[in-house]
Amino acid sequence: MNKQLIFKKRPLGMPEADTWSLETNPIPEPGEEEVLIQQHYISLDPAMRGWLNDTKSYIPPVQIDEIMRAGSIGKVIKSNGHPKFAEGDTVTGWGGVQQYVVTNGENWYKVDANLAPMPTYIGTLGMPGMTAYFGILEVGKLKEGDIVLVSGAAGAVGSIVGQIAKIKGCTVIGIAGGADKCKYIVDELGFDGAIDYKSENIATALKRECPKGIDVYFDNVGGEILDAALTRLRMHARIVICGAISQYNNKTAVKGPSNYLSLLVNRASMQGMVVMDYAKDYGKAAQEMGIWMMQGKLKSREDVYEGIENFYDTFQRLFTGDKMGKLVLKVIEE
Amino acid sequence: MNKQLIFKKRPLGMPEADTWSLETNPIPEPGEEEVLIQQHYISLDPAMRGWLNDTKSYIPPVQIDEIMRAGSIGKVIKSNGHPKFAEGDTVTGWGGVQQYVVTNGENWYKVDANLAPMPTYIGTLGMPGMTAYFGILEVGKLKEGDIVLVSGAAGAVGSIVGQIAKIKGCTVIGIAGGADKCKYIVDELGFDGAIDYKSENIATALKRECPKGIDVYFDNVGGEILDAALTRLRMHARIVICGAISQYNNKTAVKGPSNYLSLLVNRASMQGMVVMDYAKDYGKAAQEMGIWMMQGKLKSREDVYEGIENFYDTFQRLFTGDKMGKLVLKVIEE
Repeated sequence: MNKQLIFKKRPLGMPEADTWSLETNPIPEPGEEEVLIQQHYISLDPAMRGWLNDTKSYIPPVQIDEIMRAGSIGKVIKSNGHPKFAEGDTVTGWGGVQQYVVTNGENWYKVDANLAPMPTYIGTLGMPGMTAYFGILEVGKLKEGDIVLVSGAAGAVGSIVGQIAKIKGCTVIGIAGGADKCKYIVDELGFDGAIDYKSENIATALKRECPKGIDVYFDNVGGEILDAALTRLRMHARIVICGAISQYNNKTAVKGPSNYLSLLVNRASMQGMVVMDYAKDYGKAAQEMGIWMMQGKLKSREDVYEGIENFYDTFQRLFTGDKMGKLVLKVIEE
Repeated sequence: MNKQLIFKKRPLGMPEADTWSLETNPIPEPGEEEVLIQQHYISLDPAMRGWLNDTKSYIPPVQIDEIMRAGSIGKVIKSNGHPKFAEGDTVTGWGGVQQYVVTNGENWYKVDANLAPMPTYIGTLGMPGMTAYFGILEVGKLKEGDIVLVSGAAGAVGSIVGQIAKIKGCTVIGIAGGADKCKYIVDELGFDGAIDYKSENIATALKRECPKGIDVYFDNVGGEILDAALTRLRMHARIVICGAISQYNNKTAVKGPSNYLSLLVNRASMQGMVVMDYAKDYGKAAQEMGIWMMQGKLKSREDVYEGIENFYDTFQRLFTGDKMGKLVLKVIEE
């Protein structure tokens, strides 16, 4: 049977348990030129919260009674004459929160299961890694010697942003929640400094950690931290707007950055990004990141929880911050 | 004698009459290689309000007991061996709010008084015109066919922004205060549409005037209008942050744009600018704008008030909006 997580009720604020329900249905059969995929891991990402809102965005919202959208990775267990995928292939795509999926293969990619563990393919070598890569290099226009600040620095995207900036010869300061994460990004990932937003005053800590200001701020969080970062911009600084996790569960309006006129004073820019725009270059980026990983320059860390039944508890960790690195749910039952 | 406006008291909120005092002092003598300029016109600009705040910005604040900073234009009436300027030359620079000024000529430019009236040299051919030109073309990356929205559209900068965008083959919508200004920008300046922020709901009016959205928003005002414009961005839209006149007299924090995540959804950017960065290209821009003026494609309108004694009353018009086009104070007494 196929356990599937169905979206049942649009949340206001932090999603509650009745936002989704788990259903059990027969495993579907692949039609002509289709494959049946047994999913092993589901990617849990802050962006999922946005997909639950009935508002115009970069992607249509998930509809009530649909399977919850998610990136995923698994193995082809049956091919009905599919032109590209054969049984046994490891493939990644938008499989949703379910254990089995039938697809014609559109927007699915075959990966080499011998080169990296499956969770890494939906983390550092998947959407979060691609977001970090194109966000900091293309949108952030990173240059050697830049002073880079990244929020959500121990997370799936932020941890990669900071490591890429280090590889490119930058000074990197990370903002993360709690002493463990701050220690991790400095001791394990090689960041030059860390700010614990749960225990420190951000403005004061920014003056300490970025006394010369900031050339690039990669923002995953929005809110007070974005506002504080704006006060430390250097001339021609770039702010990459990747996300705003602090605002996703707001019941009132998003907090706009009061200090945005710092953009004027410092001839700086703030630019939004959506990773899908770079799809044609994913392969090249994954190759470069794979080499960095093999060279030991880029570390990938996944925090894997088990059981599709535990989706809701695991999802909440995105917003409480109670996780380290890329959050992944193992849905295959062995 | 030389009437001079002295900055006396840092204002909180809208400046009151005791912010400045008028003093009368002897006309200074030019030292070696200096000139004495008799000032004819003073430029009044919203940016002046920012110079009164004791905060780090793109230019140091005016200090208490200093002459109030202002752009100006006048004639050299005495040269003490100045290498570039001779008696009778018309020159423009940062003369401050006073009737006479002595200078070594640094940051002053000679202009041809036969080609345009003096007020035009501190308007369309001066800082506001340069701001419009480089702001819309360089920062706004204007392309033929773009849909352009500009606020402060009947003002010194906005009116030029809109006309340049029309010259470049764009659709242009202006936001201005009051029916007269809206009529002016459409009937006289050739804008495609106008929104009266004093009598219309901005969000509703934007849907009517920009049904296909906005490619470039040139922002002179900030606040609610910036937030409304963010809801209408097209993909890869550019917002030029030139000013935020709605926020300059705030006694509380600047209103940040709540809808800034539209930058993410639409892969859009928001970039600040300061006109001084383009100083080396002013000549080329003024030449192109002068040609457009002679061809009748670019109209320049100045609203001239008289008497240095009336500085304060005239200054207030910047914020009440009770003026049309570039605000200028004539300070020469005839």
